Order: sequence, then structure tokens, then C-alpha cells
Amino acid sequence: MRCENHIVNQILDAYKPMWSLNHAISLMGWDFETYMPTSGTEERGMADSQLHILHKNLLLNKDFVGLVESAKKLDGLSDLEKGIVRVLNREITKQIKIPNELTQAESLERIRGNMVWREARQKSDFMMYAPHLKKMIEIKKQIAEKIGYEKHPYDALLDSFEEDLTVDDLDKVFGELTPRIQKILKKLVDLGSPFCKESKLAKSNYDIQSVDKLNHDILTLLQYDRKRFRMDVSTHPFTETMGLNDVRITTRYEGTDFKKSISSTIHEAGHALYDLQRDQSLSVTPLEGGSSLALHESQSRFWENIVGRSLSFVQLIAPMIRKQVNFANQVSDHELYLYFNNVKADYIRVDADEVTYNLHIALRYEIEKKIFGDELSVSEIPEFWNDRMEQLLGVRPTNDSQGVLQDTHWSSGLFGYFPTYTLGNLVSAIIASKMRKDLEDYEKDIKRGDFQPIREWLRLKIHQHGSSYAPKVLLKNTLNEGYNPDYFVTYIETKYLES
Amino acid sequence: MRCENHIVNQILDAYKPMWSLNHAISLMGWDFETYMPTSGTEERGMADSQLHILHKNLLLNKDFVGLVESAKKLDGLSDLEKGIVRVLNREITKQIKIPNELTQAESLERIRGNMVWREARQKSDFMMYAPHLKKMIEIKKQIAEKIGYEKHPYDALLDSFEEDLTVDDLDKVFGELTPRIQKILKKLVDLGSPFCKESKLAKSNYDIQSVDKLNHDILTLLQYDRKRFRMDVSTHPFTETMGLNDVRITTRYEGTDFKKSISSTIHEAGHALYDLQRDQSLSVTPLEGGSSLALHESQSRFWENIVGRSLSFVQLIAPMIRKQVNFANQVSDHELYLYFNNVKADYIRVDADEVTYNLHIALRYEIEKKIFGDELSVSEIPEFWNDRMEQLLGVRPTNDSQGVLQDTHWSSGLFGYFPTYTLGNLVSAIIASKMRKDLEDYEKDIKRGDFQPIREWLRLKIHQHGSSYAPKVLLKNTLNEGYNPDYFVTYIETKYLES
Repeated sequence: MRCENHIVNQILDAYKPMWSLNHAISLMGWDFETYMPTSGTEERGMADSQLHILHKNLLLNKDFVGLVESAKKLDGLSDLEKGIVRVLNREITKQIKIPNELTQAESLERIRGNMVWREARQKSDFMMYAPHLKKMIEIKKQIAEKIGYEKHPYDALLDSFEEDLTVDDLDKVFGELTPRIQKILKKLVDLGSPFCKESKLAKSNYDIQSVDKLNHDILTLLQYDRKRFRMDVSTHPFTETMGLNDVRITTRYEGTDFKKSISSTIHEAGHALYDLQRDQSLSVTPLEGGSSLALHESQSRFWENIVGRSLSFVQLIAPMIRKQVNFANQVSDHELYLYFNNVKADYIRVDADEVTYNLHIALRYEIEKKIFGDELSVSEIPEFWNDRMEQLLGVRPTNDSQGVLQDTHWSSGLFGYFPTYTLGNLVSAIIASKMRKDLEDYEKDIKRGDFQPIREWLRLKIHQHGSSYAPKVLLKNTLNEGYNPDYFVTYIETKYLES
Repeated sequence: MRCENHIVNQILDAYKPMWSLNHAISLMGWDFETYMPTSGTEERGMADSQLHILHKNLLLNKDFVGLVESAKKLDGLSDLEKGIVRVLNREITKQIKIPNELTQAESLERIRGNMVWREARQKSDFMMYAPHLKKMIEIKKQIAEKIGYEKHPYDALLDSFEEDLTVDDLDKVFGELTPRIQKILKKLVDLGSPFCKESKLAKSNYDIQSVDKLNHDILTLLQYDRKRFRMDVSTHPFTETMGLNDVRITTRYEGTDFKKSISSTIHEAGHALYDLQRDQSLSVTPLEGGSSLALHESQSRFWENIVGRSLSFVQLIAPMIRKQVNFANQVSDHELYLYFNNVKADYIRVDADEVTYNLHIALRYEIEKKIFGDELSVSEIPEFWNDRMEQLLGVRPTNDSQGVLQDTHWSSGLFGYFPTYTLGNLVSAIIASKMRKDLEDYEKDIKRGDFQPIREWLRLKIHQHGSSYAPKVLLKNTLNEGYNPDYFVTYIETKYLES
């Protein structure tokens, strides 16, 4: 990319080695989860931390910081040029504010705490993990103070995952969303909705090679170009972008409940498409990534849920499923649809359906806010978790593995990350609503397997821009909305109560 | 690793980011050949060149160079400490002497020339490629002048692949080796040796999945631990070492002539074992690699040829072969052995048997020496090639693809590399001879599939030391030999004329 402004061009040139280090770090991350021999862990950890240090040194090099400072003062920059300066300035500011000792302390505690958390989860023993959680929270509180905030310490952490996100935003979101979703869930249960009846398909074992073939066939149907994209297997599915022309996803095969594997594949493919449809001029620039975690999650959830779990889509792929999964021949298209959309209030977030999912996030948000507002101590968390889960979802975990120990996020220092999942869900519903107005053949196109109009709409409105605009600005500019929960609630009501 | 000397310890600390960049560069290289989507080429090229620049900047950083200079003056260093200083000093000196413009010119010409060479080889049109070969030779001559040499400009290039290797060494090696091998080849042909009769197995198509299974079974037989090692597939097999606990090989499947795939696998596994049996204290130090290209090739050729094509080994794996390759049931063990050891004077080096292989290298050595001695112009090369091939091997290429255009090395700037292949063959025979004296059950152990004594001998004599010693020093210290061709000639005579 070449810009009008020569200072921005100097910035872009100086950014190339940083981009290259990110490229290598991404590849090392992908390889770690897919093909790396297990004994390579320690060497990989060393290389990863050293490359991060090299990256930080380049970013905070005084000539580079000077260039970005000069560019901040320039008038008449284009939107792209402003975006470059904005993204780099955010990164520099954060890295400068957090002292190396805190970064290292977090990094060390992440490794130690994560190891203990794994064992504690297995043993369902929160007290075993509690000292590490306490230590990590202390570090994160210090980091929040260093970063700074206007109203609430948690704001500092939220902003590091989602630009400009605050407790005020989220109080408003969950204040509206939570009671409305609880009401819908209660209705579904009270009505004895067919969505609440578990399908026998969920218990049947599948052949992994066949479902792998099925996943690849679905990716082909969704028009993924293997010259720029590939899929591998890992325990926890993820998307890793090496660059705009090398985007990779993974999927998972547990051997039972095949919808999990298909949904994972479509979810990650949604993330991948966001990056595959970026404007190529943003390649090897600071704008190459997505606008935010919530925007990224909106893409994965749009494809996984709104398209992937729609009746039209399930009908479209039903013959492909029956070809690879023999026992699926025993059920009708509609039963397959109900299988993909089974609703059940349960303990585990990652297995939650689209109705109950955000209640899990509401719980984590409440707890994180209280932790950083000094309203909840570590020892109080498990009981608070169980009480609130019972109030929100009507189920009470019988042990810590089902409750407070279920997620990896806290042991990895990811406080402030959970809310972006819900925001992604909300944005996916906004997108679907706006898209249906623009594309009158939306439903027909899905029925006949033509995804080009949907892809093109997403490319123009969201994908092409990368991180040129902050998420709130992008939402306002292209969808004329904010993190508004109305669309999502309407979508859930229509799908689950009116069909 | 912690050393006695604090300056050396400072060097080792400062080396960690360089090691980490090498680690990432290795992984990027492995991924490029195995899994990378094709459109990722340009981004990968950018990342690769940027990481090389970062590495060079760290290596030539004046504080780091100062540390190495100080360490050079120290007395009483241990062998390991001396090795660290020797290896880094070699690398620094080379990088300082070659100006950036020349490095960049070579890098650019490598990409351009390689592309044209590919097309020229396809079209068998040397004149199309000639201007690029001329340009690369000019660059390499300038580089040789910058590096400096005592007697012959080619010495400068030889030394960059094999420490302290000179034209004098190689004139002596090929002066003895070439006529003796020619004599053996003539005898074999004149006698109508069974080794010279082509097996029908060479023409039969195999099932790739079955031979893949067979290769993995052979690796298990050879005791490769998958926690630190893996095998994938690529067009041109290679070994890539990410670190001492993550060593990877690739193999190839053309679908006919299955011995090629098995031999490739064993060859690369031999390279891998060299790195897998390094002393772990050398991890993340400049001594982590092998002593030299010739030493590395001695390990791959020892396993591929001396063990892998021996009658005992072929008999050992014959039942495994017959299980996976159906048509191999039609032949006896001895016919399988002859198939693995078929001798044929032919045009293509990479397909050459162990008798004729070094005659191909002799030809390339003569030409490279003449080029850098200003005795042969680019336009004269094809005819010289064909004339000399006829004299050496008794066959005359009918086109340039069969002749001068067959190898990628020159278009990649690798002048001085070929001779290390022959040195590797010579050293493999020295090793075999010495090993048989030390291990009285050598043959029995192979027959019963117990490779531990052989592995342990190699570990103690060669593998553990890494690049602590220069290759000539290591050979002298542990085998009490130099690049002496006698052992190889005796091995070939015994195997092909006396069995």
C-alpha cells in the first residue's frame, strides 16, 4: 500500500518487520495446535516470547514512535491514513503504559496458573486454583491502573479487547438483553417446545473421515478457495490468519453429536471469510486485521447460527449429511433442523445453544465487573457463580468443573474478553436484519446454495475495511446502529416462538 | 546452557533472539513445502526476507560483535566455549564482508533466475537461462572476492558450505575417486552383473497410502520417537530442524518405483537422527546444528545406503514391504535386494545409484572449478557437460533438460554445494568401517532389527557434538581420518564385485 502522505509511507515501511514477526508468531501458534511434536513445547515457548520482545522493541523504537507522533498531528489525512495512525497509536500507548515487569509477571502467571487450572478443573477443586486466580486478578488490576480509565477499572480491560467498550455500554446491553432472553427461555420450556426435546442424533457415534469429507464439502459449497485457505484439525477450533492470502481454520471431531463439528467448521469459516475478503491494499499494513473481536465474532456467529442453523440451510445440506452420516437417514429434514437448534439450559457455555448462550456471558460479565469493582473476593466467586446461574438459567452446578472452573479465559488473563461474544451475537442479528432488506432473494439464495450475494454484501459493508474504522464507528457508518440487542431478541423470538 | 566464562554466557543470552528467528524461519520453510496455501507465497517471501534482515541486524549489532571479539582473545576456554566463538565468528565475518547490495542482488537473482530456470528446463532451452546463469556467476565471483581466499576463488565458496574445504582437498579426492569408480562401473557392465539388470518392480504402480504406512512402520522399526519427530509429504524431500526436540522430515510419493520413497524416508531420517541425538545442553546455542553439510550428508547416506540398501536390512523389511506392496510378493528377498541396488549409468543425478552417484558430482565439481577459475564461459558449459558426462558415465544427454539444466543449485546460487554430497558419501563409508570394528554384532543387530547399538555409536562419535568442532577436526578426533576415498571405494568394490 502506498499513501499520499510520506510520513505514513515511512510508517508503513517501518511496519514491515513488525508484520513479519506477527506472521511468524501466527504460524507458530497454528503449528502448535495442529502439527508440532509435543516435545517441541519448550522451544516454541522460547521462540514465541523472543519474537514478541523483538516486536515490542520495534514498536517502541523511538524513531518509529516519533513518526506516529508526527502523523497524529497531520491534517487532511485520508480515512485509511487516519486508521493506520489510530491502530498504531493504540498499540504503542498500551505497550508504553504497561511496564515490562507487569507484562512478564502476567506471562509467567499465565503459564503457571493455566497448568494449575487444568488440574483443578479435572479434580473439580476451586481452592487449588484460587491462589493463582487471585494473583492474576492482582496483576490485571495493576494493569488496569497503568492503562487508566474514566469511570470503572474494568473499562481499561474491556477497551483492550474491544476499542472504546465500557461498563456503561454493557450494563445497557445486558440490562435489556438478559430479562428478555430469560422470558423467551421460560416460554419455550413452559410450552414444551419441540426445540427443547433432545434428538437421538446427539447420542450417535459418527465416522470421523466421513464427517471430515462432509465439512470439506460444505466449505466448497460456501465457495472457499483452497489457494488461500485450508482446514486442519485441533482440539479447540480456531482461525489463524497468516496474511490476507493465507487464512486457516481448524475443526474438531469428538466422534459423537456431529452437529458440533459442522457448526465449528462453519463458525471458523465465518471468521476466515472476514479476513479473506479484506481489501488487498491493506495487506502487510496495521489495518490488515478485523475491526474488533466483536465484529469478528459477528461474522462467525452470522454464518454458524443465522445462516448455518436456518431451516433453508439445513435443508440444503441435508442430502450431503445423509450421504456421509448414515444414521441421519432415519430423520426428516425438520428433525435435522430441530437437532441443529436444540435448546437446553445447561452448565457449559461452549456447548450452549443460541438462546441460552448470552445468559452464560451475562454471568461472566457480572462477575468480572464485581471483581474489578472490588465487590467480590476470589473465595466468594464459586457460590456467587452457582447462585446467579440458578437465577439466570435455572440450573445449579453440582461441582466447580461444571461451574466456575469451566473456562480457560481467567487463567489466561483474558478478563474483559467474554462480553465480545455477546456483542458478536447482537451484531450478527443486526447484519442479518439489514441484509434481508437489501437482498430480496436472501432466503432463495440460501435454498439454492448461492452464497455470492451474501458474501458480497458482507465484503462491502464490513470485510473490505479491515481495522480502518473503530468498531463503533464502523457499525454506525455502515449499519447505522450500535450494540443494540433488539435485533437479536427479535431474531430469537421469531425463530423459536413463531415458527 | 551455562558456561564457565561470563562473556560467553552474555553471548548465549544475546543469541536467544537470533535462535528464535532461525526457529521461525525454519518453520516457515517447512510450512512452505508442506501445508501453505499456494497464494501465500508472496506474503511468506516478505516475512522470510524481513526475518533474515532482523537476524543479520542482531548478529552485526556492535555490542554483540564486541562480545564475540572479546571472547576470541580469552585464554582457557573449554572446547564448547571455543566452538561457540568459532561458529559465531565465522558467521559474523562472512556477513560483514559481503555488502548488503551483493546479498540483495543475489537474493533477487535467485528468485528471477530460478523462475526462468524452471521454464528453461521444461523447454530444454539452455540459451533462455544462460543470461541468468551468467549474472549469478558474476555475483558469486564478486562475493568470492569479498570473502577472500588464499589460492583459488572457488575456495571462498566451498568454505561457506564446508568449513575449510579447498580445491586442493577436492582435487585430491576426485583425482583418486573418479578413475577407481569408473573402473568398477566398467567391470560391472562388462560382467553383465545382476546389479545392472533393471527390476520389473521399478515399473509397477503402488498405492500411496500403503507405502505411507510402510514408511511409518520403517521409522518405528528404526525407533523414531514421534514426540520429537514427524514426517509429512513434499515434492522434494527434506529435513527441517525447528530445535533439538522438534525435528521433521518429508518424503515423496510418485506412485511408481516404491524404493525411491523408502530410500528418501530413510535418507531424511538419517539427517533427523543427527539432530535428535545432539547433546541437549547445546539446545538454543550456536552449536545446535550439525558440524557441516558433509557430516550431515554422511548420516543420511549411511542410513539410506550402507544400512538401508544392505542385504540384511532389505531382508529385515521384506515382510513389511510385501504386506503393503502386493506385487512385491512376486519376487524373492534377493531380487528385492537387487532392485534396491540397481546400477545404471544415466543422466539424472538425483536418481543415480550409489556406484555412479559421485561421477555426477565429479562433473559438477570440474565445471564449477573451471567457472570460478575463469577457464569456462557460460556458453561453453552445455557442450563441456555433455562431453565430460560421456567420458565419465558413458552416456551423452540428448537435450539440456537431461544435462546442464537438471539441477536447481546454480539458479539458487549454490555454487560449492555439490562436492559436500560426495564428501558425505566418503564419510559414511569411513563411519561404517570404523563402526564394524567397534560393534562385533553390527550385522546381527541389523538382521534382528536392533538399531540401538548403531544409534549409540553415532551419538557418541558424531551426533552429540553438534557444531562444537569443525568437520575436519571432528573427523580427525573421532574417526582419525580425513575425506579419504579409500573406504568408500572398498565398500563399493566389496558390495558390488565380491558378493
